[in-house]
Amino acid sequence: MTVHVDAAGNLRGLWQPANASPKRLILGSHIDTVPNAGAFDGVLGVALALEWVSISQELDLPLALEVIAFSEEEGVRYGVPFLGSRAVAGRFDPAFLQLKDVDGVSVETAIRAFGLDPDSIGEAAAVADAIGFVEIHIEQGPVLDTEGLSAAAVTAIVGQTRLSLKFSGQANHAGTTPMHLRHDALAAAAEWITAVEALAQRSDGMVATVGRISVEPNAANVVPGAAQVSLEVRDADNATRAAAVDELLSKAAAIAERRGIHLEQTELLDQPAVQMDERLTAFLTDAIEATGFPLKTMPSGAGHDAMVMASKMPTAMLFLRSPGGISHHPSETVLEKDVEASLLVGREFLQRLAKEIG
Amino acid sequence: MTVHVDAAGNLRGLWQPANASPKRLILGSHIDTVPNAGAFDGVLGVALALEWVSISQELDLPLALEVIAFSEEEGVRYGVPFLGSRAVAGRFDPAFLQLKDVDGVSVETAIRAFGLDPDSIGEAAAVADAIGFVEIHIEQGPVLDTEGLSAAAVTAIVGQTRLSLKFSGQANHAGTTPMHLRHDALAAAAEWITAVEALAQRSDGMVATVGRISVEPNAANVVPGAAQVSLEVRDADNATRAAAVDELLSKAAAIAERRGIHLEQTELLDQPAVQMDERLTAFLTDAIEATGFPLKTMPSGAGHDAMVMASKMPTAMLFLRSPGGISHHPSETVLEKDVEASLLVGREFLQRLAKEIG
Repeated sequence: MTVHVDAAGNLRGLWQPANASPKRLILGSHIDTVPNAGAFDGVLGVALALEWVSISQELDLPLALEVIAFSEEEGVRYGVPFLGSRAVAGRFDPAFLQLKDVDGVSVETAIRAFGLDPDSIGEAAAVADAIGFVEIHIEQGPVLDTEGLSAAAVTAIVGQTRLSLKFSGQANHAGTTPMHLRHDALAAAAEWITAVEALAQRSDGMVATVGRISVEPNAANVVPGAAQVSLEVRDADNATRAAAVDELLSKAAAIAERRGIHLEQTELLDQPAVQMDERLTAFLTDAIEATGFPLKTMPSGAGHDAMVMASKMPTAMLFLRSPGGISHHPSETVLEKDVEASLLVGREFLQRLAKEIG
Repeated sequence: MTVHVDAAGNLRGLWQPANASPKRLILGSHIDTVPNAGAFDGVLGVALALEWVSISQELDLPLALEVIAFSEEEGVRYGVPFLGSRAVAGRFDPAFLQLKDVDGVSVETAIRAFGLDPDSIGEAAAVADAIGFVEIHIEQGPVLDTEGLSAAAVTAIVGQTRLSLKFSGQANHAGTTPMHLRHDALAAAAEWITAVEALAQRSDGMVATVGRISVEPNAANVVPGAAQVSLEVRDADNATRAAAVDELLSKAAAIAERRGIHLEQTELLDQPAVQMDERLTAFLTDAIEATGFPLKTMPSGAGHDAMVMASKMPTAMLFLRSPGGISHHPSETVLEKDVEASLLVGREFLQRLAKEIG
């Protein structure tokens, strides 16, 4: 393969056999992860992309294949995720160059220190006429493990709404304030948290989470005066997600009204769902079925480079089981038989694609 | 009056007219309060006790009256409340002398620095044959204000249970963990908090409060792995309080069990209710009725020196309205007409008591 590092720090290798298709297929994932993480998040997808190239070489398939090991997917250093894939998708905002890490080192300085030229990031953009992008990644969730399955084709990266709600009641003495004269902000928040959970449980595929809460004054002998909570709703369908958020905000308003409590809400994020490409995904699902593995499709609840790449080209994604659903943790792992499954699926996928292209 | 400061720092004055009863009635409250507090918590009860003495003098009643301005009721400096009234009740644990404030100054050192002799604290104990103790205090709650009443006779100081509960579930990725595979510790705690509130709302006179919560990891995009909450239950009846705590712990256990969550509980306090003396309180309620004020009796949700004194002698307590229910705050106040009411009640009370004693 012809290898180079682009100006965004993505490591890229091109396999271009003599009989290659004029259009290339891009494979890959990221090589960074989070602190104190495991050995498989991202990098497994890069290693398997290289194995898919080997398979294509062995089978002498007429496919041009580019493997990309994306830089800075997690956003740990600069707070902004997907720096590498944004560059490849042609969506790297030049303002990102001025972001600084905790030591005050800017993206621009870091790129130069690595021996690269930030002025050339535009050249990192993928070729305009690629066949598409395929990412293999561990699921990082418990669905496949719970269902006893090796792999799944991803249908969409879910959209996400993040809100902050603040219930402001009245702090009072917990001994001298009768129940009927209270405006307990934590009791209001608790009633709403149970409603959030109940709504998501009724909605197939949706997840809704209150992950953060802070209460004032947060003392055992004081009726809580204020409770600030986070809300995160994710769903593969944007309209479903928007309707759920509306319903939960109405519910919060009704709870606050009934309790004589003031409610403030702030929207922090409204990120649409990203659909995977139907045609490219059909090659994947056909390949899964051809290998004899049970066909499983599912949305991805987490963001991936595939989400960014989908804005540039047809994109598909293959999930591999995460035993215990564990990821971003040293005990993150993957089963050998699932890695083997991904190679068998790859063989079928590449053969079908080569035939189609040819 | 004959005045002295006892070894526990209580300021004491004795009115012993020539025609005095052999037994004395003790009146008083505390003269400390909390930081950034108001002008009426405690000290109003001392000032009104002195006014009651004036009334007794004017009427030439044959009553020996001792007024005590108790020290260290709040426990702000040493963490242990009621140091003054404990000494008067003969319940001052010598170990308290070794408690240290934030500057490392012990109770013993502070007492000596004030010119008193900590070895004489035993002598601060009240006479063995007092008629009883009466405390006047602002309600520090909203009940009288809400009902438009000036004053109430206190029936009991409520008992109190304090617990800490920890729900331990499983922290997980909020995007990739489907609802049915979660063990959300905050959702469990929220369900239970609504149950705590509902039970207390059903139980006349009971208050139950979850005032404190801490969640791990407390991040918007992580399903909460652990939630620690406080529980405080107060009721004038010990059996009712114990039954409520049992029911709430059973409920917590059932919620945890159903959700596959581990529950730990720690009891931090189990303080029995203290009943006011029926006979002495009857003098108060008769006095209230005789003045033409509506008769109101109620438990006290907060602790008072009267709670400690009740272990030594018959004790009664008169509450005055707290406008807005506000206390321990600079805007704490009292209405002039309620102060006047307390003087009219005092006149009736003292006359009735003098007649009974005589």
